Amino acid sequence: MNYREVTVTGEYMARLETGADWREEIEDFARDIEADAGWFTAMGAVSDAEVWFYDQDEKEYQSVTFDEPLEVAGCVGNISRLDGDLFAHTHAVLSRPSGQALAGHLNAGTVFAGELYFRAFEQPLTRERDETTELDLWL
Amino acid sequence: MNYREVTVTGEYMARLETGADWREEIEDFARDIEADAGWFTAMGAVSDAEVWFYDQDEKEYQSVTFDEPLEVAGCVGNISRLDGDLFAHTHAVLSRPSGQALAGHLNAGTVFAGELYFRAFEQPLTRERDETTELDLWL
Amino acid sequence: MNYREVTVTGEYMARLETGADWREEIEDFARDIEADAGWFTAMGAVSDAEVWFYDQDEKEYQSVTFDEPLEVAGCVGNISRLDGDLFAHTHAVLSRPSGQALAGHLNAGTVFAGELYFRAFEQPLTRERDETTELDLWL
Repeated sequence: MNYREVTVTGEYMARLETGADWREEIEDFARDIEADAGWFTAMGAVSDAEVWFYDQDEKEYQSVTFDEPLEVAGCVGNISRLDGDLFAHTHAVLSRPSGQALAGHLNAGTVFAGELYFRAFEQPLTRERDETTELDLWL
Repeated sequence: MNYREVTVTGEYMARLETGADWREEIEDFARDIEADAGWFTAMGAVSDAEVWFYDQDEKEYQSVTFDEPLEVAGCVGNISRLDGDLFAHTHAVLSRPSGQALAGHLNAGTVFAGELYFRAFEQPLTRERDETTELDLWL
Repeated sequence: MNYREVTVTGEYMARLETGADWREEIEDFARDIEADAGWFTAMGAVSDAEVWFYDQDEKEYQSVTFDEPLEVAGCVGNISRLDGDLFAHTHAVLSRPSGQALAGHLNAGTVFAGELYFRAFEQPLTRERDETTELDLWL
């Protein structure tokens, strides 16, 4: 297994802005604090969401859009460099009024309210194409 | 975006007590260690749960109760001050024997077993009414 | 409530290996870094999963197997000692192409891709049989 010990340059609480995009907000925040790498957990609500699922046979993402208000029951992800830019790899669990849960890779979602905990790392994480999975992976 | 760097006064592992309320246990723990602010993740099981969904149009919470044993597949939240008292804003993903997932804002739930990881912050977090969302938000 | 302040001996980012078992990878990682105790969050995808649900009346686990590719929308857990060996108590939320979420205690799952954040603790955590729940709990 590939792993790396990391040292923390800072840890943060942030509030994602209503109306902004959930993932872009996290990337903007990472740019603000000049973090090339980090790990986060978050929670809140969105007014819509675009969730991706990776087709492990076809080696491509499939997208499903939920055009409805949803709780963000949980969100976990990390910041790394991808093709020279910052990328927030973001997974989330969403929920409907009935309590029904939806989940996956959160590509986009309009923030209704969002609370973020973020740890910034000194060591960079850089994604490169992995031949086996055809995903961009770090380490 | 609003954010704040935080410093940690301590980090903890805790076991939530069987039969107690999941959210109150976390609030009691925070009082015990005199933490005004913190971030946590947790896991375990409950014997029932009251899950809330925020109606973004009506600006009010809707409640749904599950009177059945459920795994707590994941739980994320934070401690802040609200109206002069401590409040554990708690989201959770729950699951049934079939693996079906339920999720949302966890208002209450009777602990069957609970394992908590908690980081206490030196800086306070205080919730105030946000005019746009009509939620009590910090920062 | 039982709780313990912990001190961290190191924090790590790791990539779980494609084709390995999700939970065993985390246990192998903990052995590699000689961690007796720790807390983690993770995300990724598996090509199958065995999810357990604890029957709180019968006091035994029920198992359900999903023989299909799934996103790991979120994963939270901890490392402790159980019967003289390391044990990664692992809960996860999984998802299907439709966004449908499944969740529970993740006993096994074949890693497609996995990204892990791990904090190793100086203080050991040892599980012992709890008479009330008949689960192996620490503290």
